[in-house]
Amino acid sequence: MIKMIAFDADDTLWTNEEHYLNVQKRFADLLEIDLSFKEIDQALLETEIRNVPIYGYGVKSFALSMVETAIQLTGGQVSAATINNILAEIKAMLTDDVELYPHVESVIRSLAQDYRLAIITKGDLLHQQSKIDRSGLTPYVDQVEIVSEKTTESYRRFLDNLGVVPQHFIMVGNSLRSDVLPVAAIGGVGVHIPSAFTWAHEEPTQQQGSHSAYHQLEHIGQLPGLIASLKAA
Amino acid sequence: MIKMIAFDADDTLWTNEEHYLNVQKRFADLLEIDLSFKEIDQALLETEIRNVPIYGYGVKSFALSMVETAIQLTGGQVSAATINNILAEIKAMLTDDVELYPHVESVIRSLAQDYRLAIITKGDLLHQQSKIDRSGLTPYVDQVEIVSEKTTESYRRFLDNLGVVPQHFIMVGNSLRSDVLPVAAIGGVGVHIPSAFTWAHEEPTQQQGSHSAYHQLEHIGQLPGLIASLKAA
Repeated sequence: MIKMIAFDADDTLWTNEEHYLNVQKRFADLLEIDLSFKEIDQALLETEIRNVPIYGYGVKSFALSMVETAIQLTGGQVSAATINNILAEIKAMLTDDVELYPHVESVIRSLAQDYRLAIITKGDLLHQQSKIDRSGLTPYVDQVEIVSEKTTESYRRFLDNLGVVPQHFIMVGNSLRSDVLPVAAIGGVGVHIPSAFTWAHEEPTQQQGSHSAYHQLEHIGQLPGLIASLKAA
Repeated sequence: MIKMIAFDADDTLWTNEEHYLNVQKRFADLLEIDLSFKEIDQALLETEIRNVPIYGYGVKSFALSMVETAIQLTGGQVSAATINNILAEIKAMLTDDVELYPHVESVIRSLAQDYRLAIITKGDLLHQQSKIDRSGLTPYVDQVEIVSEKTTESYRRFLDNLGVVPQHFIMVGNSLRSDVLPVAAIGGVGVHIPSAFTWAHEEPTQQQGSHSAYHQLEHIGQLPGLIASLKAA
């Protein structure tokens, strides 16, 4: 029996990582240094991961890590104009339109008739809230939870607060590490929908990925079929 | 009858604005330009307020607004070394110790025996959560709510979710605009404890401050006495 279905937001309901990738490419061009895109991007990723415990996730953290990487890779020679351009890219990201993936609106609307729906996302509070507001999905969603990390503990606390047992809970998302495996680990149903773009830091390590059982779909349009088959089983 | 008491966090339970002020002073020095501290600080405040709708509150937003102001005030001449120093100040702020105000620990511990307690704070999700964790107050607090804005609407939603009516609710904080007036406006009890330092953007406009009734205390040690007098009334 399923009572609640929760969705990750970025790269599950709408495009996100693609915007980061585009900014990363422009960032590499802006620096005008003698390193390949791959080398610059690797340095940025290392800065980002090192800063997660201090800055957390989201666009503002990404901004501060870009500025830091720009200073580091240019040996302190980056110009104020380049940093200004980085800030402009960030402001554009924060006000960009929300592009829902195909099927999202109809699937959410239809599932809302039979289940309690939630969005569980991590990142920047204001930016996530603003994207959810602009997505047009709020009329169908009962709970919005913006967290700083998605762990077995954070899912357990979320479900406890609502009085839902994990066995009645489905979590749908593009990240095995954040959306699928921790939910499967506490006895819930994890549904993995890979996206064309997933941030390198969201890829699970071999060990994390090797144990739990979960479902995998190609796109969210297949979700109602999976839920019907779970009910029939 | 009072059932739930909620507290703002920054500048109500622990020092905060003081840390910003210290960084603002060092920021003004770092720029090495021919403007007074007051002029630099005014420009920074204007940038911050202009950016609130995009960046929201918190230290990372402050960081991005400092970088922007540095570029603007130096006419694009600020050095990468100076920007690096700004980033270092920000990282120090995000990992600084939490200094509780006098009386906070004993008052919270004692009130927790008779009331449901909450912390309602705005700002950066990860940073606020990390400060609450490090405050040592979590064993006494039933609900932690980190919001992007504190409005009558956000208080109403918070109380609805918990099934608490505003008449049974006390909100304690240093900001009339965010903590006291919106709660008084929906029928709750607002308790204002001014702090030595309050961010200029948190000062209410004349109109906002002129209507509702609320209580004012000098320090949080007087809160149990106020609650006793409310019960007796």
